[in-house]
Amino acid sequence: MNIDTIIGLVGPASKKYFELARKRTAELAMPRRAMGRVNDLSERLCAISGSLTPKVDRRGLFIMAADHGVCAEGVSAYPQELTMMMLNTMLAGKSTVTTYARITGTDIILTDMGALGTVIPPQECGCTFFDRKIARGTGNIAVGPAMSQKDAEQSVITGFEIADMIIKERGLNLITAGEMGIGNTTPSTAIASVFTGIKPELITGRGTGIDDDGVKRKIRAINDSISLHRPDPSDPIGVLSSAGGFEIGAIAGVMLAAAANSIPVVLDGLIATAGAMIAASLAPHCKDYMIAGHLSAELGHKPMLDKLQLEPLLNLGMCLGEGTGAICAFGVIELAAATISEVALMKDLNI
Amino acid sequence: MNIDTIIGLVGPASKKYFELARKRTAELAMPRRAMGRVNDLSERLCAISGSLTPKVDRRGLFIMAADHGVCAEGVSAYPQELTMMMLNTMLAGKSTVTTYARITGTDIILTDMGALGTVIPPQECGCTFFDRKIARGTGNIAVGPAMSQKDAEQSVITGFEIADMIIKERGLNLITAGEMGIGNTTPSTAIASVFTGIKPELITGRGTGIDDDGVKRKIRAINDSISLHRPDPSDPIGVLSSAGGFEIGAIAGVMLAAAANSIPVVLDGLIATAGAMIAASLAPHCKDYMIAGHLSAELGHKPMLDKLQLEPLLNLGMCLGEGTGAICAFGVIELAAATISEVALMKDLNI
Repeated sequence: MNIDTIIGLVGPASKKYFELARKRTAELAMPRRAMGRVNDLSERLCAISGSLTPKVDRRGLFIMAADHGVCAEGVSAYPQELTMMMLNTMLAGKSTVTTYARITGTDIILTDMGALGTVIPPQECGCTFFDRKIARGTGNIAVGPAMSQKDAEQSVITGFEIADMIIKERGLNLITAGEMGIGNTTPSTAIASVFTGIKPELITGRGTGIDDDGVKRKIRAINDSISLHRPDPSDPIGVLSSAGGFEIGAIAGVMLAAAANSIPVVLDGLIATAGAMIAASLAPHCKDYMIAGHLSAELGHKPMLDKLQLEPLLNLGMCLGEGTGAICAFGVIELAAATISEVALMKDLNI
Repeated sequence: MNIDTIIGLVGPASKKYFELARKRTAELAMPRRAMGRVNDLSERLCAISGSLTPKVDRRGLFIMAADHGVCAEGVSAYPQELTMMMLNTMLAGKSTVTTYARITGTDIILTDMGALGTVIPPQECGCTFFDRKIARGTGNIAVGPAMSQKDAEQSVITGFEIADMIIKERGLNLITAGEMGIGNTTPSTAIASVFTGIKPELITGRGTGIDDDGVKRKIRAINDSISLHRPDPSDPIGVLSSAGGFEIGAIAGVMLAAAANSIPVVLDGLIATAGAMIAASLAPHCKDYMIAGHLSAELGHKPMLDKLQLEPLLNLGMCLGEGTGAICAFGVIELAAATISEVALMKDLNI
């Protein structure tokens, strides 16, 4: 599998089923489009699945984990060791997102793309684990590239291959991508700046909660990275190589796999959406399959969603990552699927 | 049971458990309050239930139905017969809200508070039905009172008694109130105007989709009603009697029953929130138990939520009613409950 083969698998969502769904919505036993954006979402699910009875009951969360060399610049409120600690918490099923996945009936597939430590899943583990470590952390983007072009391609291919395999094996029909990696709001904000053209000063947030000096260091690191590499938004692998992360590339691969398999993928927050920017730049039709789960409190999120022309379903001031915000939107997505397939039509009621 | 007895059963939510929940949130294995308003909601659920392990798995939707004399003023896009048609669709389990209730595991309790026709539930019916018809429709509020003071009290008492009985019998721990009644955005907007002091001209919406002339007729009917009765917001039974509806009074009763039983009640849109205004005016602590599920596209909704100091969880341009918007928020509420009770603490991870 190479990047061009993957891109070749991504076509547009079905215009025919979108139009059929619009027609059916108009005939539902409710005032005209009274469910607002839930009606819109129903129609997108039909276009994505090529069906008037979209199902979203087989769910998967692909968590991609990696460490970041840019932590050397003091951009995070937490030490890098926390990546491993949180991965172990996830493997024990006790993190926020693993709790949410259990409640919503979502399979967890956790992949080590480049954590500093060695992940050892426990004997009894509620999730599927893959070791696909490309390296023990990326390079420091403030002083050099995050990774080679080859590793950038490999990160996307790995994400695609894992998601593609699991989607097909398990018949998944609704997926999302989460992440773990201390420091990863820094490369994600760099990616946001490159693709939106907005200065880092205007879109750099507090990540896990850094103070004002930390924000200054973070902005400086991002500006240093961009000055050093001058990443070109029309070269997404170049962007990933110069200012990305292994988990961000893998998330882009997950998004491409959703599109290649004609199933919806729900975007979480800043980091997942940075992956979505890479995916959409590689294969623009990939956007057809993306649903923005929520608007993160992180400043860089909204400009990326705007660029992708996606309106978030929720806006609850969340910024935890892991995939939590995406899963919070699953309830609405499930009801949108049911609205188009299960609610009576006016004509059936003699209305 | 009388109104004063009911009011006496409503006390404040637990400050102690709110503070304990704040403390636990600060100790969760996540950056400080990283789940934003989901963390806030967790804490409210703890205060409501008097517990650090709030449960929201036993759910009930109380649908209250009635007709409205003000339809004579041409305020609705649909004929009054639609109330009965939609009630039959609900009893057949094919309306939007009955679909949503099935998917979210929510019991449906449908009560005829004052429909024009006679509701006959089918042999096989997925819901519990009560015939508590006070009259066949209210009076036309543009030319007289909606109902007597006695009937206004009876509508609240009936809603309370039914909800209180079912909550206790089934051990419900999360409820909402829906409605069916062609024309009911008109009395609800009148109630919104009385309690917020905002002129009907500024908050009258299109309901099920009336045209500009219809909106003018609706504003005139509301203004006529207010001029005629001069309802006093400090006399909620008087407001209900002059400008309300039987289902609106019953919804107020459902809200009071939630508070009396220390369980959360999720507000749907304009009509349910008009009921909430009546309930909160009768027993101000009732607000402690209310969760605003969504912001309706109906203009009068936001001023009422502001008055109740409630911020809606969703804002998806919905205005269907029936309880649909409230149920759309159940997914987030379920995850909020799990956040405080199931996610690991920092100290358990040696973080």
